[in-house]
Amino acid sequence: MDAIRELTERFSQFPGIGPRQAKRFVYYLLTRPNGYLKEFSALVNELKGSITVCPSCFRFFPKRHENSSLCDICLDTHRSHEELMIVCKDVDLESIEKSHSFNGKYFVLGGTVPILDKEPNRKIRASELIKTITERKPELKEIILAVNFNPEGEHTSDYVSSLLKPIIANTPIIVSTLGRGLSTGTELEYSDSETLKNALEHRQSSNS
Amino acid sequence: MDAIRELTERFSQFPGIGPRQAKRFVYYLLTRPNGYLKEFSALVNELKGSITVCPSCFRFFPKRHENSSLCDICLDTHRSHEELMIVCKDVDLESIEKSHSFNGKYFVLGGTVPILDKEPNRKIRASELIKTITERKPELKEIILAVNFNPEGEHTSDYVSSLLKPIIANTPIIVSTLGRGLSTGTELEYSDSETLKNALEHRQSSNS
Amino acid sequence: MDAIRELTERFSQFPGIGPRQAKRFVYYLLTRPNGYLKEFSALVNELKGSITVCPSCFRFFPKRHENSSLCDICLDTHRSHEELMIVCKDVDLESIEKSHSFNGKYFVLGGTVPILDKEPNRKIRASELIKTITERKPELKEIILAVNFNPEGEHTSDYVSSLLKPIIANTPIIVSTLGRGLSTGTELEYSDSETLKNALEHRQSSNS
Amino acid sequence: MDAIRELTERFSQFPGIGPRQAKRFVYYLLTRPNGYLKEFSALVNELKGSITVCPSCFRFFPKRHENSSLCDICLDTHRSHEELMIVCKDVDLESIEKSHSFNGKYFVLGGTVPILDKEPNRKIRASELIKTITERKPELKEIILAVNFNPEGEHTSDYVSSLLKPIIANTPIIVSTLGRGLSTGTELEYSDSETLKNALEHRQSSNS
Repeated sequence: MDAIRELTERFSQFPGIGPRQAKRFVYYLLTRPNGYLKEFSALVNELKGSITVCPSCFRFFPKRHENSSLCDICLDTHRSHEELMIVCKDVDLESIEKSHSFNGKYFVLGGTVPILDKEPNRKIRASELIKTITERKPELKEIILAVNFNPEGEHTSDYVSSLLKPIIANTPIIVSTLGRGLSTGTELEYSDSETLKNALEHRQSSNS
Repeated sequence: MDAIRELTERFSQFPGIGPRQAKRFVYYLLTRPNGYLKEFSALVNELKGSITVCPSCFRFFPKRHENSSLCDICLDTHRSHEELMIVCKDVDLESIEKSHSFNGKYFVLGGTVPILDKEPNRKIRASELIKTITERKPELKEIILAVNFNPEGEHTSDYVSSLLKPIIANTPIIVSTLGRGLSTGTELEYSDSETLKNALEHRQSSNS
Repeated sequence: MDAIRELTERFSQFPGIGPRQAKRFVYYLLTRPNGYLKEFSALVNELKGSITVCPSCFRFFPKRHENSSLCDICLDTHRSHEELMIVCKDVDLESIEKSHSFNGKYFVLGGTVPILDKEPNRKIRASELIKTITERKPELKEIILAVNFNPEGEHTSDYVSSLLKPIIANTPIIVSTLGRGLSTGTELEYSDSETLKNALEHRQSSNS
Repeated sequence: MDAIRELTERFSQFPGIGPRQAKRFVYYLLTRPNGYLKEFSALVNELKGSITVCPSCFRFFPKRHENSSLCDICLDTHRSHEELMIVCKDVDLESIEKSHSFNGKYFVLGGTVPILDKEPNRKIRASELIKTITERKPELKEIILAVNFNPEGEHTSDYVSSLLKPIIANTPIIVSTLGRGLSTGTELEYSDSETLKNALEHRQSSNS
């Protein structure tokens, strides 16, 4: 197999990319200057060397030459240790950070648990989570399960809850999930009953 | 102008219909049997004769030959008089009814108030609303503003709130809005900050 | 069944309309002034009275009070009798007319012949076509089959060809089909092999 | 700038990729095994070393260790030298090859000439084309301009024609363009007048 085909196949495995766009990527690279490919190749090759996984929250972050191996969020002393948000992926964490609405710590599961999956422990960082919660139990007040509102997200949330239950039993730690209701742009006419029910249940007084 | 063009023009004004589909409607009618057009025409002609507006909640409903002129929801004695939900349109009311999550009464505004509109009173049933709230004040405990989560919905909600304020001042009546957060299918990665902030603010304990 | 539901059901049968949009149509009508509904209803009721089918080309056209019962295209003496274009539907004829690229006469089949249909004669004006071609045989030079380039169009074209064959055998009448190749906006990268093959086969010298 | 951001920025420049998908690519790479990244990086780095541009048709093709530096199409003695198809991009050539409808040689321009571009010669291989045509003039019978049927394609075709004109003047060489008409899936109702006009102009007898 020649290099065009081989690289096309690799790009076809990228998330959301079909064989046609994969080939366009390869031709795109072929028409770049030589230096560009060298640089791009080096960036890919050194990616894992310069990016590391935070041993505390398990998100990816750029390695630094300081003493600590923790990421900037975990190092940030202005963030509360009392709240821990569990997210599935790094991009979820980034979305939350961009909303500037959370000032606690995170734990990145590294994936979701598909429904009917027989080895859920292998899809997410289950043992790392158990260890983290066990250690931080004394200082924790709330664990927030921040998952997508779809069947796989729900299932992951249920599975994680079942992992947490024995650890936090007999502690005052609250386990919470993200609120449900109307999201930006939602129109009542086109809403499903589940969403409307949640929106009504969680309605808020606007008198204040 | 011939009948094909004239009817095409009428159909073009239907919500969501362009001139091309409008013309397809006309040819569709032209190829129906004669009896079909007679029936369809009669249905349109008699629509307003057989459908009336409920004098209490202002929704459209089929006229009955009984003594009362109220719609079935307003007549339903099993529904609470203490909660009144204000919706913009009949279809919104129908969505809520389909979700089986509300057991109070309704008020249909009949429209929304566009941002920058100079005569908001003419777009919605403002005076009817004022009259309704004034009359029912003694029995009301909560007024729910159920509007779309978009700028025009927000604006309508604000305007209606300003109408209600003087009437319910010094009463214990609560004015509430639909809860916000993740709606069915929402993925954190693709959520706007506003939605995430709402979801986090309204997070719920799942311990119970 | 009440009038809202009944009319919603009728609109649901309109081409391309689902139950939700159908209901929006009904509420649209309910919020029109009384006179509007009367007019609209009358337009529908009188549609077939004011529109008639041309006995020569079988297209719909507005009735006139003159002596002739033919449509304006069939009456137009500037149009050639030597070329007859067979189209499936009135909208196809209108598209061709709008392109100002044909100056002959038309015959509207009134539909297409679905693949595997057991009674093709009932889906299109087969006997009328046979009669028309038989009568006009002496003056005809070319019959153009103008159908959609999709399986059902092809099938209709094949079926019509089989109807024409015995009639025009031993005559110099040419039966032609629309040319194939690149249509406006076609990009080679995304074209199917069939289209490229046609485009190449029918390539044209640009020297002149 | 850290490696995640830097690589995200690179991927954002890939054809059809926005910043969000670019970031997903980076996280996709981060979760691959170490060996995968090494391999992928090597493939990118060696791409231009193993793929070369054919000095005759200017398409990209995998280098071989044989004596000839020509691509397999240019080497193929079963393909006619009398027909030369000029295409804008490698993917266009591949589409044509996949249709198995052309058995001549190719010339890849390497791009298109944008409308209003002031230096068209820099966007395509103009001088190489002039050289190629000048050399092969004696054996050429037809030059086929195979471009997209859109304004930029048309403009490129016009520009290339103007380059060819002085070279092939006083030769019997035909310059042709791809045929136009209905492409697969085209429906008359939704066709533009230009396409219908072409389809009608290039209609074909189906008598044979």
